[in-house]
Amino acid sequence: MPSQISTSILDRTLNHLKKAWHDLSVDRLKDTLELSPELTEKDHALLRQWMDSCLTNTGGEVAARRRAAQLGENYLALNAEGRKKFLLLLNQHYDVDNNAVEQAIEAWRHADDDTRAAARVQLRDTLDPPRVKLLAQFTELPEGVKFLVDMRAELLALKRDEPELAPLEADMKRLLANWFDIGLLQLERISWQSSAQLLEKLIAYEAVHAIQSWDDLKNRLDSDRRCFAFFHPNMPQEPLIFVEVALVKGLADNVQKLLDEDAPILDLNETDTAIFYSISNAQKGLAGISFGNFLIKRVVAELQHDFPALKRFSTLSPIPGFRRWLNKQTDADLETLPGGKNWLQIAEPRLPEGWHLDEEAAEKRREPLLQLAAHYLTVEKRRGITALDPVAHFHLSNGAEVAQLNWLADNSENGLKQAAGLMVNYLYDLPHIESRSQDYSAQASIAQSAKIKALCKT
Amino acid sequence: MPSQISTSILDRTLNHLKKAWHDLSVDRLKDTLELSPELTEKDHALLRQWMDSCLTNTGGEVAARRRAAQLGENYLALNAEGRKKFLLLLNQHYDVDNNAVEQAIEAWRHADDDTRAAARVQLRDTLDPPRVKLLAQFTELPEGVKFLVDMRAELLALKRDEPELAPLEADMKRLLANWFDIGLLQLERISWQSSAQLLEKLIAYEAVHAIQSWDDLKNRLDSDRRCFAFFHPNMPQEPLIFVEVALVKGLADNVQKLLDEDAPILDLNETDTAIFYSISNAQKGLAGISFGNFLIKRVVAELQHDFPALKRFSTLSPIPGFRRWLNKQTDADLETLPGGKNWLQIAEPRLPEGWHLDEEAAEKRREPLLQLAAHYLTVEKRRGITALDPVAHFHLSNGAEVAQLNWLADNSENGLKQAAGLMVNYLYDLPHIESRSQDYSAQASIAQSAKIKALCKT
Amino acid sequence: MPSQISTSILDRTLNHLKKAWHDLSVDRLKDTLELSPELTEKDHALLRQWMDSCLTNTGGEVAARRRAAQLGENYLALNAEGRKKFLLLLNQHYDVDNNAVEQAIEAWRHADDDTRAAARVQLRDTLDPPRVKLLAQFTELPEGVKFLVDMRAELLALKRDEPELAPLEADMKRLLANWFDIGLLQLERISWQSSAQLLEKLIAYEAVHAIQSWDDLKNRLDSDRRCFAFFHPNMPQEPLIFVEVALVKGLADNVQKLLDEDAPILDLNETDTAIFYSISNAQKGLAGISFGNFLIKRVVAELQHDFPALKRFSTLSPIPGFRRWLNKQTDADLETLPGGKNWLQIAEPRLPEGWHLDEEAAEKRREPLLQLAAHYLTVEKRRGITALDPVAHFHLSNGAEVAQLNWLADNSENGLKQAAGLMVNYLYDLPHIESRSQDYSAQASIAQSAKIKALCKT
Amino acid sequence: MPSQISTSILDRTLNHLKKAWHDLSVDRLKDTLELSPELTEKDHALLRQWMDSCLTNTGGEVAARRRAAQLGENYLALNAEGRKKFLLLLNQHYDVDNNAVEQAIEAWRHADDDTRAAARVQLRDTLDPPRVKLLAQFTELPEGVKFLVDMRAELLALKRDEPELAPLEADMKRLLANWFDIGLLQLERISWQSSAQLLEKLIAYEAVHAIQSWDDLKNRLDSDRRCFAFFHPNMPQEPLIFVEVALVKGLADNVQKLLDEDAPILDLNETDTAIFYSISNAQKGLAGISFGNFLIKRVVAELQHDFPALKRFSTLSPIPGFRRWLNKQTDADLETLPGGKNWLQIAEPRLPEGWHLDEEAAEKRREPLLQLAAHYLTVEKRRGITALDPVAHFHLSNGAEVAQLNWLADNSENGLKQAAGLMVNYLYDLPHIESRSQDYSAQASIAQSAKIKALCKT
Repeated sequence: MPSQISTSILDRTLNHLKKAWHDLSVDRLKDTLELSPELTEKDHALLRQWMDSCLTNTGGEVAARRRAAQLGENYLALNAEGRKKFLLLLNQHYDVDNNAVEQAIEAWRHADDDTRAAARVQLRDTLDPPRVKLLAQFTELPEGVKFLVDMRAELLALKRDEPELAPLEADMKRLLANWFDIGLLQLERISWQSSAQLLEKLIAYEAVHAIQSWDDLKNRLDSDRRCFAFFHPNMPQEPLIFVEVALVKGLADNVQKLLDEDAPILDLNETDTAIFYSISNAQKGLAGISFGNFLIKRVVAELQHDFPALKRFSTLSPIPGFRRWLNKQTDADLETLPGGKNWLQIAEPRLPEGWHLDEEAAEKRREPLLQLAAHYLTVEKRRGITALDPVAHFHLSNGAEVAQLNWLADNSENGLKQAAGLMVNYLYDLPHIESRSQDYSAQASIAQSAKIKALCKT
Repeated sequence: MPSQISTSILDRTLNHLKKAWHDLSVDRLKDTLELSPELTEKDHALLRQWMDSCLTNTGGEVAARRRAAQLGENYLALNAEGRKKFLLLLNQHYDVDNNAVEQAIEAWRHADDDTRAAARVQLRDTLDPPRVKLLAQFTELPEGVKFLVDMRAELLALKRDEPELAPLEADMKRLLANWFDIGLLQLERISWQSSAQLLEKLIAYEAVHAIQSWDDLKNRLDSDRRCFAFFHPNMPQEPLIFVEVALVKGLADNVQKLLDEDAPILDLNETDTAIFYSISNAQKGLAGISFGNFLIKRVVAELQHDFPALKRFSTLSPIPGFRRWLNKQTDADLETLPGGKNWLQIAEPRLPEGWHLDEEAAEKRREPLLQLAAHYLTVEKRRGITALDPVAHFHLSNGAEVAQLNWLADNSENGLKQAAGLMVNYLYDLPHIESRSQDYSAQASIAQSAKIKALCKT
Repeated sequence: MPSQISTSILDRTLNHLKKAWHDLSVDRLKDTLELSPELTEKDHALLRQWMDSCLTNTGGEVAARRRAAQLGENYLALNAEGRKKFLLLLNQHYDVDNNAVEQAIEAWRHADDDTRAAARVQLRDTLDPPRVKLLAQFTELPEGVKFLVDMRAELLALKRDEPELAPLEADMKRLLANWFDIGLLQLERISWQSSAQLLEKLIAYEAVHAIQSWDDLKNRLDSDRRCFAFFHPNMPQEPLIFVEVALVKGLADNVQKLLDEDAPILDLNETDTAIFYSISNAQKGLAGISFGNFLIKRVVAELQHDFPALKRFSTLSPIPGFRRWLNKQTDADLETLPGGKNWLQIAEPRLPEGWHLDEEAAEKRREPLLQLAAHYLTVEKRRGITALDPVAHFHLSNGAEVAQLNWLADNSENGLKQAAGLMVNYLYDLPHIESRSQDYSAQASIAQSAKIKALCKT
Repeated sequence: MPSQISTSILDRTLNHLKKAWHDLSVDRLKDTLELSPELTEKDHALLRQWMDSCLTNTGGEVAARRRAAQLGENYLALNAEGRKKFLLLLNQHYDVDNNAVEQAIEAWRHADDDTRAAARVQLRDTLDPPRVKLLAQFTELPEGVKFLVDMRAELLALKRDEPELAPLEADMKRLLANWFDIGLLQLERISWQSSAQLLEKLIAYEAVHAIQSWDDLKNRLDSDRRCFAFFHPNMPQEPLIFVEVALVKGLADNVQKLLDEDAPILDLNETDTAIFYSISNAQKGLAGISFGNFLIKRVVAELQHDFPALKRFSTLSPIPGFRRWLNKQTDADLETLPGGKNWLQIAEPRLPEGWHLDEEAAEKRREPLLQLAAHYLTVEKRRGITALDPVAHFHLSNGAEVAQLNWLADNSENGLKQAAGLMVNYLYDLPHIESRSQDYSAQASIAQSAKIKALCKT
């Protein structure tokens, strides 16, 4: 599904482009750039010439951007090999001019009070490589911002094998981080009234509990559900990050129940709790630019406004690192851990295929696993500073509390593999989230309920 | 009118803010900041503390932005003296850390191939002062982007007397230039169907031919007129720059005729020419970030699409610097200029009160003034490079040609004072604008019609 | 102003029409109808032929409607005399076929149980004259519904001198009443964010307290004001009826104070009362089709939703018939009326020019006028059934109570002339409006406050 | 799928209602109506009382409509039996008052010139039963117009077994026909950008070539496809009728090819023909109120505007009555029909299971079937007046021509069963559609291409 969509975006972009060229017939470019898909040696020279002419504004800024758009159109028509060469070239050339930097450093060092500010600005400017200007010019493309986001996604993938691409990637991140400042984004509700074009992207981008079908999707947008996303005004049909919320009575403790299409719709007057059961980043090209904490808090505010009777805001979250961590514990380690001794009693393999379907077998594992998981979430740290589990870290740094562990709460293949079917509720207790966030950041202190504390006792 | 609007924007912002605080009751701030309007010494310390807490993200990023918004709210409630102190404080503190810069320079100089890129990024980052982060946080305000634009407008005005504000101003410009990249703006048509809230801003912002009344405005938006503006998606009811266009038959040669409310509406099927008769920058806070060349070309594209029969795109422009230049010419200068000798024949004062109403007097001045103006526009240069007249420079660098001088074309007080009633048509001849733009930039060559050339002959 | 607007609507319609003809070039009509503006004898025959072809659907229904649209276009181009002739012709011809009616009556009378229903439908159908079909076909015009509404307005004006137009007028009323069923209308808020095109209509249509300027209008749409209107989905920029509301503290007792542009804006948190100070029907062509009672109650519901703190919903209304009624009272009548004796003490003319500006003179008139007005509003009836004052009748039948009389509450020329400057608050006391409406309809019982009752005592 | 949707509409309506009651707390009804689902005898009396109070406007019109809405809410909660009783009751009572009709007849007969018009209106009014007023009051329901449309759909279904419901059904049809006047409807494009809520209705309502999945739907809305529908402004997410169009090169001759999801998307610059391959009425409750002819012609106009290069507008249509007709022909009949003799040569059963998959078998049947079909479409008439085939009749009365028969053009089960896989193109030849429509209506003359004529020769 995702690849299908990418293709269609590409096609769409190309179609729009054709339209755009048609519409904007003013000072139409005499020259047109046509590169071979794999970007041959010969193309290289041509490409450099073309990029030069974008950067020098030959024929005016408008014409330069028109050329940049054509460059982008060519990029879209390249194959994987061609795109790699394109990016390597962009990375290699159009970099900062080290001599200019040295001169600017000297000027700055010898500046007096009157000239120091200008010298600083000058120095900073020399450190922004010219290719950044070219990147910004790609916004001339009909869906130019999305183009850049996708280009960075490709760059990030390539960088694993070609670490020398780091400077270009850093430039792109800086540019995008600027444009995707949280204050410029819009929170919007997504519903069954949204366009099919947008909704099919939810299906493609959902990263926690895969959406099986349009019926599954419709169920997640029913009257007792809410879905919100951040959008950038220049990428109107593209969610950046979205969260799925269920309005329920009491803390939800099982995700399959939440997603059951045959479950009755709850009367909204009876709900008292909002459960955030899925948060997905939708744009790989925005990796490292984070919106999640803002999303949760804005959505809480929206829900409070619409449903003043809501008393509780909580997640129902996976524990992605639990079994990985558990597997690493030696018997000696386990001896000292809460629930560890009991766990050692169980014959290996301790979680054989289908264990969760055998009531007795499951019951025997229940207590030790709950205890070990409680310990894992609230005691184990990375470098002694942040919670070891990445999802725990995310919610704790936002000011949530580890509130409740749920047994056999996600029996999907993935749920069993990651966390033996366990899930956890992180509770956003509004009066305390600011102080909890602060305590977690400053002292690595992890807020937890009495229930969780009890489990951690050996 | 303008001041009235500013007030109402401020009020509106305050009202929205109150609403926002009410809505976003999540992790509401316990502390609230309340400064005295003139910002006393005591407030200073408080303010610094508050700014510190925004920059250190105490309690999480969301809380930090909430505090920044409250800071912005306080700024709006300060008086002129208080705002100046606020900006001076922001300029003085939260600047770059020179020691950190020096260290980063050393690290960069000694970096090897593997670390050089990261060292460069690091150095660049140390050159961005921390206050830039605070500025970006102001977008948490309901109309936060407009807030920053208006803050820069105030800063630019203050900078004249307080030149030490330059670094802060440079930071703001950089931030805004990034966000107002032309590729992120939207071109929209403004019409009588637009909201009154938007239209009253045209009245306030029109800078070339003042809009006298709502009737005058309605006339400028009639069926044979068009008005387009660039908008930023985060400032939806605020035009950044707008252009007024008249669809006419033949080159329009008189602006009072164009603006006559009693003139009949032209049948659109008979028009062959689009006259751009007014372009106004609407946001003082975006000074130095230019959109005008893009606006004209996008509007030409729109008009071509809607009216394929249009054959000619031209301006009807003022010549703001003509009389100022003319007054500076000595008799000796004039002797050598086209029309100059004849001009010297006319007794001083050469343009007495009411001269243009006396047919005979006017006729005598006609030829010499047209010749001198033709020379002024096409020969006189600033530093030998760009046209001396600023409007001429703008259109020539966009690729236009000096096409026609019009006698008694603007008899308003201002039109007589600036250019003895003369106006000029700059013609955008689509097949040639790219090469003309290039020739002007590269060789300072000014495109002109045969008519104009003829006038320049002595 | 109104006539200006009518013209522009007409022009607009014509322009749209041209566009429509251009767009809908499918099976374009070969024949075109061109009538002389005054509709000569010769045109008559042509016109009848054309109307015939609309009614017989020659060439299909689509073509027939196309012809009807052309007919409508011709109507718009007729002068007053031509339009009169056009309407008289439509009235005279295309009437019901009396023979067909007689036959249908006989068929109905002799029908048995199986055929009676069909016979009844048949009879009803013969009583709908064919011209109704033609009227409906005018909706093919770009603003066809507005066209019909305006045509009825002209017809109503003509009917005064040409009473034989009654049947056609009755047909149009029936057609429009059907389409303008209250359930098909939309309540919308009008604000300064509305289009200038819509707002200029408020200026034109306001019937109670004339809007002096765009500044006056802006003041009436400020943050402590609300304006709502009903719209028909096929007349999107045309309010049918609109109400202006002020949110205030306490019962407003003076309309000039309410409309004062320099008065400060009230903090919405302090308001406890919504004052309906102006209700205007905007479409003369919808006379006799009433929306006012629905408008008030829908607006009350909207306001309750937006401002739960509002405790009181009241009007500040004129008393249009008071002085007319007072002038008709003989001295003998006055002897028996509350306040009448004191009124007789005042020398004639009892309300000389400028009386209200003389404090002492005004004070002497105060009590007698208040008493007489209270009596007029609550005791005087038309045919013993409905309140004599038309505005009183409207609000009483909606379930309001006569709550308070206000002295020197409208010192405009009109306010003094109609009601000696008096205004009245009709209070909508929500728990009682249904029973009050019923009591008024059934028993002509007029609800009134204790204050008003006290005034009525002699 | 359809039933699922109905349910959700009902649920939605109920939810909205609850919201509506909550919002409109003004003069909330003291009494509430609660009927048992099957509508017992006891409920009957209660129901009549309630209906009476709606019709007498007790407590004012607003309250009466509020009660009608509650009545509607109760109707939705009734089971099938209850709804039948409800409709029978509404049909039986609140009918015309025959005595009043008789009196009105007499008054009309004895009226003079002055009173005749009023008497006619009066008579007409007595023939409109009071229940029509009640029906209109249901528009107070949140989706009131859709409620009435669905109620008529139920009524039409019931009428088959309960023919005495005819009068009520006639009243509803009249009311709806009035509101759904073609001039009040809006043509809108439906695309992948439309809401999922709307798109799922296409899936449910498509009546010609069933939509198999969301992927199938997406394919039908691709860049070389168009879909248009008429909407009523008071039923915004409910298409009334919709048409699916393929933009192709040359006359499309096979529907499976058109719907193939794997077929490449055509470049719009190469298309010359618009194929209308599916038209579906979406609202059973609007049976007998026709929009199809308007839809086709409006869509042709839209397409002409968007794609001036289109040269041909045609359908690719089923021939639903062909085999039914063919089966009725005796051998003697066949002897005289074009292709008939050859058809008789083929052994019975003439169209055995799978015949179309056997190339040789198919080839033998090709010519005779094409000839017989050509004859069926262009010669066979109903009562000698209209084409026997209903789809042929529809397009011919709109002015189309029978242009081309297509062999093995619809190999779906249904296509084989109805028409042995044959399909036909009806061509809309714009310059001739008006005269063809007229010739068909007036003289039953069927336009046909030379190809078709050739096939009809024996």
